[in-house]
Amino acid sequence: MTTTQLIEQIHKKRSFLCIGLDVDLNKIPKHLLAEDDPIFAFNKAIIDATHQLCVAYKPNTAFYEAYGLNGWKALEKTINYLNTNFPEIYTIGDAKRGDIGNTSTMYAKAFFEDLGFDSVTVAPYMGKDSVEPFLAFKNKHTILLALTSNKGAFDFQTEIMEGKELYKQVLETSKTWTNSQNLMYVVGATKTEYLGDIRKIIPDSFILVPGVGAQGGNLQDVCKYGMNDQVGLLINSSRGIIYASQDRDFAKASAEKASELQRQMQEILSQ
Amino acid sequence: MTTTQLIEQIHKKRSFLCIGLDVDLNKIPKHLLAEDDPIFAFNKAIIDATHQLCVAYKPNTAFYEAYGLNGWKALEKTINYLNTNFPEIYTIGDAKRGDIGNTSTMYAKAFFEDLGFDSVTVAPYMGKDSVEPFLAFKNKHTILLALTSNKGAFDFQTEIMEGKELYKQVLETSKTWTNSQNLMYVVGATKTEYLGDIRKIIPDSFILVPGVGAQGGNLQDVCKYGMNDQVGLLINSSRGIIYASQDRDFAKASAEKASELQRQMQEILSQ
Repeated sequence: MTTTQLIEQIHKKRSFLCIGLDVDLNKIPKHLLAEDDPIFAFNKAIIDATHQLCVAYKPNTAFYEAYGLNGWKALEKTINYLNTNFPEIYTIGDAKRGDIGNTSTMYAKAFFEDLGFDSVTVAPYMGKDSVEPFLAFKNKHTILLALTSNKGAFDFQTEIMEGKELYKQVLETSKTWTNSQNLMYVVGATKTEYLGDIRKIIPDSFILVPGVGAQGGNLQDVCKYGMNDQVGLLINSSRGIIYASQDRDFAKASAEKASELQRQMQEILSQ
Repeated sequence: MTTTQLIEQIHKKRSFLCIGLDVDLNKIPKHLLAEDDPIFAFNKAIIDATHQLCVAYKPNTAFYEAYGLNGWKALEKTINYLNTNFPEIYTIGDAKRGDIGNTSTMYAKAFFEDLGFDSVTVAPYMGKDSVEPFLAFKNKHTILLALTSNKGAFDFQTEIMEGKELYKQVLETSKTWTNSQNLMYVVGATKTEYLGDIRKIIPDSFILVPGVGAQGGNLQDVCKYGMNDQVGLLINSSRGIIYASQDRDFAKASAEKASELQRQMQEILSQ
């Protein structure tokens, strides 16, 4: 999906919500455990109930790899289900990959070609030649970790390197990479006070914002400091939506939570 | 496997060689493509031919994920084959993972429990709470990226942060984390001139050194600057060994390449 198509979807649905499909078998409704593929059954129910309220889904690969082959199978089924039935949905493989050049190419193939995601999250530590292989794919986005939502972000990301914080170095340096127009960035919702500065460095890029909800981030603040003329934001909520209920009505409960956020977004977009 | 057991194996085999199982179907002998599982068939042949010459194998997950479900299946079969038949072999899941705390726990479960690796490589960008979930696993090692073998290492890793290079900050900061005795570090063989300084910061830790061979690193130099009293080095070679030949004798050819390195290591250990 192109950036333009994503922006069209945001205006059509009046939503820039991304739902994180982080499936933990200890947290899903117990009756689903009797299904052949409980992970996919859960995802399908959540997707069916919420796909009109959001523009994107973001499975985090850790939650699938933890269940081995069955997990990887469920991930494949989930992305196939989305691509087949909801081509208007933007998909993010939250994988935080990154390796030397020829190896990053293999990861890019895995996520863009084999699985068929629109985008993948990538860690910047290994620099330019670890990220450019992802950027080489047309109509695909590479979502680079800039300032993450966790406490550990203060260990290195906010420390001063050559006169400015490491995450600012990452933002500025990445703009010089080949096909940098295919970059988006991760900035945690728990770091809203940094968003104003970040927008000065990357005025036009989309920012994926995790951490609204369970991690404590605030939607109004994120929009106040992070929104640009093209919206430029994808706000992710995972646990706050998908684990809204552990009962048989879990999908309905998740749709209600998603709807709350969508209504807030609609209001913000109409301002 | 404990560090002590790994050191015992190194002295027993007179080798600190790690073989990287980075299987690319375009590079393996053509006759293997007729096998049910060409990736596993290739790995099994390489392992059978080389397991007495090395102490460790390191599959890089990118090369398995690129082949989807079949790739993940081949990865599972490879690690199971190693754990069942060669329990004296140390295994490294080269995955370069790292995420917020609860998600890193899922990755740690995937690699240490589900797949059963002895260790996994982890990226430091997200800081303490993204790495400590890996460190919590007993008798497992977390191999933190410090200074990687690629050119992009100079984008951020060697830049000065708060008075010293980022990779040195990573080394020093990581020593303060809970269960830091379970840490090893990645330092590329193309950066031998940095190894002396690195040894001052982490005198006792094992260092995994990729980049000997295809990437141009030199074994003698790595040992000169990187070795400690407990050897403290695992030297990885991937392409240089496993793609030594594309003919039916490929396994024998890979054993010859591994044997060359093992003999050099034996000589170094005897000095």
